[in-house]
Amino acid sequence: MLKEAIYHRPKNEFAYIYDDQTLHIRMRTKKDDAEAVRLIHGDPYDWKDGKWIASLSPMEKSGSDQLFDYWFIAVQPPFRRMRYGFEIVSGAEKLIYAEKGFFEEAPLEDIANFFCFPYLHAADRFKAPDWVKDTVWYQIFPERFGNGNPNIDPEGALPWGSADPTPSNFFGGDFEGVIEHLDYLKDLGITGIYFTPIFRAFSNHKYDTIDYMEIDPQFGDKETFRRLVKEAHAKGIKVMLDAVFNHSGYLFGPFQDVIEKGEASQFKDWFHIYELPIKENPPGYDTFAYEKSMPKLNTQHPDVKKYLLDVGQYWIKEFDIDGWRLDVANEVDHAFWRDFRTAVKEVKEDVYILGEIWHDSMPWLLGDQFDAVMNYPFTNGALNFFAKGKIRAEEFASVIVNGLHAYPKNINEVAFNLLGSHDTDRILTLAGESKDRVKQLFAFQLSFGGSPCIYYGDEIGMAGGNDPGCRACMVWDENEQDRELHRFVKKLLELRKTYPLFANDGEFRILQAKSEDNTLIYAKENDKQLLAAVVNQSEVPLAISFPAELAGKEAEDLLKGTALTADSIHAEPMSTQFFLFSKEG
Amino acid sequence: MLKEAIYHRPKNEFAYIYDDQTLHIRMRTKKDDAEAVRLIHGDPYDWKDGKWIASLSPMEKSGSDQLFDYWFIAVQPPFRRMRYGFEIVSGAEKLIYAEKGFFEEAPLEDIANFFCFPYLHAADRFKAPDWVKDTVWYQIFPERFGNGNPNIDPEGALPWGSADPTPSNFFGGDFEGVIEHLDYLKDLGITGIYFTPIFRAFSNHKYDTIDYMEIDPQFGDKETFRRLVKEAHAKGIKVMLDAVFNHSGYLFGPFQDVIEKGEASQFKDWFHIYELPIKENPPGYDTFAYEKSMPKLNTQHPDVKKYLLDVGQYWIKEFDIDGWRLDVANEVDHAFWRDFRTAVKEVKEDVYILGEIWHDSMPWLLGDQFDAVMNYPFTNGALNFFAKGKIRAEEFASVIVNGLHAYPKNINEVAFNLLGSHDTDRILTLAGESKDRVKQLFAFQLSFGGSPCIYYGDEIGMAGGNDPGCRACMVWDENEQDRELHRFVKKLLELRKTYPLFANDGEFRILQAKSEDNTLIYAKENDKQLLAAVVNQSEVPLAISFPAELAGKEAEDLLKGTALTADSIHAEPMSTQFFLFSKEG
Repeated sequence: MLKEAIYHRPKNEFAYIYDDQTLHIRMRTKKDDAEAVRLIHGDPYDWKDGKWIASLSPMEKSGSDQLFDYWFIAVQPPFRRMRYGFEIVSGAEKLIYAEKGFFEEAPLEDIANFFCFPYLHAADRFKAPDWVKDTVWYQIFPERFGNGNPNIDPEGALPWGSADPTPSNFFGGDFEGVIEHLDYLKDLGITGIYFTPIFRAFSNHKYDTIDYMEIDPQFGDKETFRRLVKEAHAKGIKVMLDAVFNHSGYLFGPFQDVIEKGEASQFKDWFHIYELPIKENPPGYDTFAYEKSMPKLNTQHPDVKKYLLDVGQYWIKEFDIDGWRLDVANEVDHAFWRDFRTAVKEVKEDVYILGEIWHDSMPWLLGDQFDAVMNYPFTNGALNFFAKGKIRAEEFASVIVNGLHAYPKNINEVAFNLLGSHDTDRILTLAGESKDRVKQLFAFQLSFGGSPCIYYGDEIGMAGGNDPGCRACMVWDENEQDRELHRFVKKLLELRKTYPLFANDGEFRILQAKSEDNTLIYAKENDKQLLAAVVNQSEVPLAISFPAELAGKEAEDLLKGTALTADSIHAEPMSTQFFLFSKEG
Repeated sequence: MLKEAIYHRPKNEFAYIYDDQTLHIRMRTKKDDAEAVRLIHGDPYDWKDGKWIASLSPMEKSGSDQLFDYWFIAVQPPFRRMRYGFEIVSGAEKLIYAEKGFFEEAPLEDIANFFCFPYLHAADRFKAPDWVKDTVWYQIFPERFGNGNPNIDPEGALPWGSADPTPSNFFGGDFEGVIEHLDYLKDLGITGIYFTPIFRAFSNHKYDTIDYMEIDPQFGDKETFRRLVKEAHAKGIKVMLDAVFNHSGYLFGPFQDVIEKGEASQFKDWFHIYELPIKENPPGYDTFAYEKSMPKLNTQHPDVKKYLLDVGQYWIKEFDIDGWRLDVANEVDHAFWRDFRTAVKEVKEDVYILGEIWHDSMPWLLGDQFDAVMNYPFTNGALNFFAKGKIRAEEFASVIVNGLHAYPKNINEVAFNLLGSHDTDRILTLAGESKDRVKQLFAFQLSFGGSPCIYYGDEIGMAGGNDPGCRACMVWDENEQDRELHRFVKKLLELRKTYPLFANDGEFRILQAKSEDNTLIYAKENDKQLLAAVVNQSEVPLAISFPAELAGKEAEDLLKGTALTADSIHAEPMSTQFFLFSKEG
């Protein structure tokens, strides 16, 4: 067997606390290399005759990507302490793998050879709020969702939808507009709103904050916002705001104070300024990217930290918001986020902390910082397969399996799974205007685990390129909406609510992936039921055979609401169908 | 090239902040597989014509173990942000490796493919106190080092050294005994004392604390301890105490209160008690190991946490101690240790926090918890090669190189490198009473990096098996001491002080390792000098050839104090010699 491919390390996605009694252990081997893997495990203090007393428990193969097989087991160590290693078998060959390397026989005479999960402490468990895994989010860019109060429109605001969005035009979207449409969201099946920034700022996107303690007057006042949250809550809808703490706007009071007073400013250490007076071309201070209108905040400075943590607490305390989405979260220090978590959870224990991170985020997801990150690997995988046709079925399966093994299961359950946002092309545009592909995207997103988010308007077939194209005014005239797409999304959300296997129940498994004809069957499965999604990602209609374990068994076609018993099913081009199999009787 | 062997992941020993400007990047390939590796790196916001602008910088091979080659580079990203990947070359073959896998050409059109070190924040840098890397520790088991005040001997104390140590006998070692011998330590070259527990407890080892706020009366009173610290400091010697926070002793007040009052005790949640009244056989509460006299403390309980953090601060504030060694540190929750760090560093910024962890400790060494751990992989490697002859030169080289690549360089610089302790056989005993082997152990320990620790008495040739044998009374009669060994250790400590290459200056490198004749040459090297250690680990005298880069060059034999120019050198059986080469002129 290939030793170089074998990998495990504790205290990340390979070994973690799942609940207060249970550890999850994963390991990987070269693809198709090992026949069986068993966990060698025991309490570090169980000894007899100079040898450690360990048990052997079989692990199951939880998936494969292009290079590796992954193995999994859940264990409940009686005294919450565990030392462990792995016995890997292929034919007559047996290998023992542990912290100190490879052995022919388990080196039970010295426990220091083994991996260690020293103690299962509840305090160290990654613990996101329970409600998140049952939430379906809807992202609102407030300037463009609904104009409910024309009296507070910004100067020069254009009539709703009368022009294409530009980096600088305004249409007067506001909180009243959101309140007016809460029933629309509730009817669709939405249970959470994620607002891009609402604080006083200069631009239409509001990422250049002027005052973190004030609402931008074009959106309304604090009373209106309070009412919005209250009415949303009454309809079972949570509210999450955007915290732009990496940088402020150019017009942020403290930055203006430094520009004005220089050395004499009490705020001169609030930013990363190279020399005073401040130079601007090129900026003599750290910025977001190279954007001189967005000076980077010095989140390591105690006053800045206190100010921003106060902001974090204020909007929860005063307005009862349910979550914070953290902009450019990866460029702020870990120490700040640890204190942020403590501060906001102190005010509301089940507030959701969501970081914007586009890359491997394990260092932020160890339980002491974020509850989740925006799951862009999910996004890219889904777009490349369903929308763009850039990868075929086997590669897609590999990307998804790899993604599921990149984080612990309890992190996957609350991952923020988005298809598009205010920072990307709209999905209909990415899919070359193919509505079938868009439906497949939604079908995958809403039958996968995690906490999915729909970008406003995608559910009614709005199109548009990346910023500013994707930020057009929400279309409210039903004649202009794609109602059939809307019904499809609503149907999926009903299924997700009715059948927990559409959400975070059960285990995800690739049943078959065939790149030749570009078809895929994936399953979600618990003890009682198996949900199979049959995907035809080709341009032609196909008969897709069920794998042996499902062929000839009775199933329910969930989109059609009919029963069937079949060995194969007819699949239209670019289509996804769902079949529910009972495992009982 | 073997893709399955290639590995990198940010924010651990593979990518970390070295200083406020510098990132260290490492990666690994299969041994002898790649000819060259280059880092592809740039600022995430540098783009031109839809492509990311990246540079290529060569990495150097920093060592090899049995399976892998390791590659290293230090980089200083101008804006402290970096995206990166690796170009790996072997003959005509080229492979690009990045976060999203392997590519034929660098996928510059989408930066999401690359690894990310988002921002170099000083607040996130691992930062141990500067003094630690120049400190040589001496571990004192206070009951057995010196009896300076017979008036406070515990009842039934035996005359000094009159009997073999047992798990329960006493000899009356105390603080006055330590004070009396501070000059002995200073003369040897010691700059730090690590005391096993000194707080009021039941046993002779004092790991079963009764009162964390009181000194055990058999050692003296608080005034004597204050004087000890003051006099040690005056002689340039730091003082570190042992914090046994995982568990208390059976007689600890709060535990006794629970035994007595049961449900009514205000301390009933201070422990992990299954039911009340407390059962004892078997213990109806969590313990250290299965030791019913050591009930595990509930460090997640706010009152327990507050009490123990107060303890952590008290002994620093009141007595000016310089470090805390944390007993069974891995079985206490990370959340507790984070708060512990904040609490003790608040009182004394450069206090040293040393965790007792016997396995991979990266999760405790991310900058937010410990400054170092007790480096048992170093211990085991050194003992297996030099003392026990269980491994030969090449395996030893592999173990050491692997160990150096298991942690960031700034962690290696403060690693607590011990050869023995109160929990192990004494090194002379492990070495089968071979003084030559003991000298080699010291030669390796004291020419390696990190913060070495000598267990009391090892330097004068005391022998003894594991607990209780290793806890005999310190031998003060010079006629009974091995003075020649003492001179050798003292000489090594002088060399370590005179030549920074013996300590944490320069890079460690294996120059040659030959298992056939069991010889080894390792080097420490900076821009100006190279220190070569020549080890003959065989039973016969050998002529050991220098590698080509050193052959025929002038060198100084540091143990003999003579100059030589040679192609090979004569090496006695079981010997280590040091040669200093100048790289200038």
